[in-house]
Amino acid sequence: MAVTLPRGFDNTEFENRTRQLQKMMADERLDAVLFTTEPNVRYYSGFFTQFWESPTRPWYLVIPAHGKPIAVIPEIGSSGMAATWIDDIRTWASPNPLDDGISLLADLLNSLPRTYGRIGATLGIQSRIRMPFNNFIELSQRITGVELIDIAAHIHRLRSVKSTAEIEKIRKACDIAHTGFTNIPNHARIGKKEREICTQMRIDMLQAGADAVKYLIAGSGRDGYDSIIMGPTDRVLKHGDVLIIDTGAVYDGYFCDFDRNFAFGRPSDETLRAYDVVYRATDAGFEAARPGATTTDIFHAMWTVMEAGGALGNDVGRLGHGLGIELTEWPSNTASDRTPLVPGMVITLEPGMTYSSGKQMVHEENIVITEDGAEYLSIRCPPELPIID
Amino acid sequence: MAVTLPRGFDNTEFENRTRQLQKMMADERLDAVLFTTEPNVRYYSGFFTQFWESPTRPWYLVIPAHGKPIAVIPEIGSSGMAATWIDDIRTWASPNPLDDGISLLADLLNSLPRTYGRIGATLGIQSRIRMPFNNFIELSQRITGVELIDIAAHIHRLRSVKSTAEIEKIRKACDIAHTGFTNIPNHARIGKKEREICTQMRIDMLQAGADAVKYLIAGSGRDGYDSIIMGPTDRVLKHGDVLIIDTGAVYDGYFCDFDRNFAFGRPSDETLRAYDVVYRATDAGFEAARPGATTTDIFHAMWTVMEAGGALGNDVGRLGHGLGIELTEWPSNTASDRTPLVPGMVITLEPGMTYSSGKQMVHEENIVITEDGAEYLSIRCPPELPIID
Repeated sequence: MAVTLPRGFDNTEFENRTRQLQKMMADERLDAVLFTTEPNVRYYSGFFTQFWESPTRPWYLVIPAHGKPIAVIPEIGSSGMAATWIDDIRTWASPNPLDDGISLLADLLNSLPRTYGRIGATLGIQSRIRMPFNNFIELSQRITGVELIDIAAHIHRLRSVKSTAEIEKIRKACDIAHTGFTNIPNHARIGKKEREICTQMRIDMLQAGADAVKYLIAGSGRDGYDSIIMGPTDRVLKHGDVLIIDTGAVYDGYFCDFDRNFAFGRPSDETLRAYDVVYRATDAGFEAARPGATTTDIFHAMWTVMEAGGALGNDVGRLGHGLGIELTEWPSNTASDRTPLVPGMVITLEPGMTYSSGKQMVHEENIVITEDGAEYLSIRCPPELPIID
Repeated sequence: MAVTLPRGFDNTEFENRTRQLQKMMADERLDAVLFTTEPNVRYYSGFFTQFWESPTRPWYLVIPAHGKPIAVIPEIGSSGMAATWIDDIRTWASPNPLDDGISLLADLLNSLPRTYGRIGATLGIQSRIRMPFNNFIELSQRITGVELIDIAAHIHRLRSVKSTAEIEKIRKACDIAHTGFTNIPNHARIGKKEREICTQMRIDMLQAGADAVKYLIAGSGRDGYDSIIMGPTDRVLKHGDVLIIDTGAVYDGYFCDFDRNFAFGRPSDETLRAYDVVYRATDAGFEAARPGATTTDIFHAMWTVMEAGGALGNDVGRLGHGLGIELTEWPSNTASDRTPLVPGMVITLEPGMTYSSGKQMVHEENIVITEDGAEYLSIRCPPELPIID
């Protein structure tokens, strides 16, 4: 039975998010927060459009210490923003190279009550400012007497714990990708191109309910692949190849992010062994994933299995990460990350290793941390490498 | 007969791009240029991956005054970058919150010959820095004795003139979208949802050869729509509705960007009139598009027709723009833009007007400026509003 999920969120979701943000703001003595990127603007306003694909115009969302967020946006988005829970929407005719909203934004920030003289913005870890650098500098000069404070780590932490409604959207995205992967053995064949296989998988996922397929890569080669971020290419699958496909299908603005491996013809024993090692590493990561443990515990649990299993190295740089509105979100499962796991956190387990020169084996699953452990959101990959003849 | 285009570009294309950039650098007395965004890194290196969807890791490309670009990138991209024309690839294990490539990048920039003490970066008009703000500030402090110079306008100008190979990729993307639009009357019906119609169009475009459909919005309503950047939603098409779909299909990394309008049942005379006015505005824009004229000439040619035709306003903010690697690129067809048109420039003609309260009519076509005028890359929309019964 197909489950129909409600689209978007109730206003209570946005009220909760804003309340938690404003609690952080009080703790950090911030008079306001400024957002400029799609994930943060959407997370706090509900403004959901593909138009961020156009880099021309900046979009701003300001969260005051009390009350609802305030949108400062190009006129073209006026009716779209009016359909969200936001009431105070200020627009200008954009693009305007001489003043693309800077005056409007500075006036707003200068008009807000100034208790601490501190305004938060995402300036640090894994963050961006989505407006021209020089305009941001100009803005900072026009809000005189105000110190700009980095809040990137706070925003990562707040967004990392997903609500039930968010988790259901991610689960649905996982189900959609599962359907796409399940159909691979029905159309992938020796002699086909990576690209053909991936296009069919895109179509299968759209038919399974994906709104978009924002990420779908493929790597293949004899006994393995040397990259998990390139392709698909016109490379033709041959007997003895291993193919990896990694996808981020999107449902209602939320990503899944996991991969699957396929052998074409009988794989080498070395490849089968690597698949088994990385499968067991996922098990170990899942066992380690529970409240009170950290991303680093997950890392060590997985890496221990892979090291014992003959890992020569890992050039991905981490063994999984957060996900949600973005394909990859903070935190990272690394040896030094040490982020405490809390219920509601959605992360990937992504054990990967180089098992011979230029050959990697990478698995990936999506999980949510629960009150007493973790739950798979993706349906676990098969314990043995699927073989397509 | 389906035309097969070669994927990617010959190395001569990257040599030409780099030569033109380095000529600008000599004129502007720059010792080096730093790029951080997907379009610019890809344009000068050929490094083409969907992995930019992951916001975690920064990627850097440095163009010295002489010689090939130098890549400073996370290890995960090493084998992918090695497949491009770039020889000098420096990597680090990323993510590393303590030093995400900053030392490596600063060392490189400090090691390059310093003739002028000036390094270019995209700091101004319609640009971004894709790395944490604080890291960019730190970098600027570690390359002592160097002034950072905004080169955003130069890069826009250099990228705005497309090579023959680039134009053919955009034309192919246009053909793919045309196929998708042509099939709409075969499946769109009164009683269907915007979303169903759009999903089918995504599938049709993938089957027609799209690598991805990065942008596909829909707006509908009785006699018209109030937005051209939101949706699709679950709104059900009714008798008397007008539907707009606007899409950016991607072929080999290049976008098309155009829309089409459809009526469901007999439209009002006012709607038919608006369609005709905007159709004729496109003609006027096309006539004005030739070397020696400017984006502002195109704007006035189109706006004159729409004003005479009863336009109440335009809240898009411009009547077209550049396109290519990005859905929308510099320049903009506005009253003040005044960018001279030169052969090879690919732009959209996007006349749009509000013709009654909350009702817009927007058309869009993609053209390339030729030696003596312009050529349509999109197949012109029908002169009369298509009616789906």
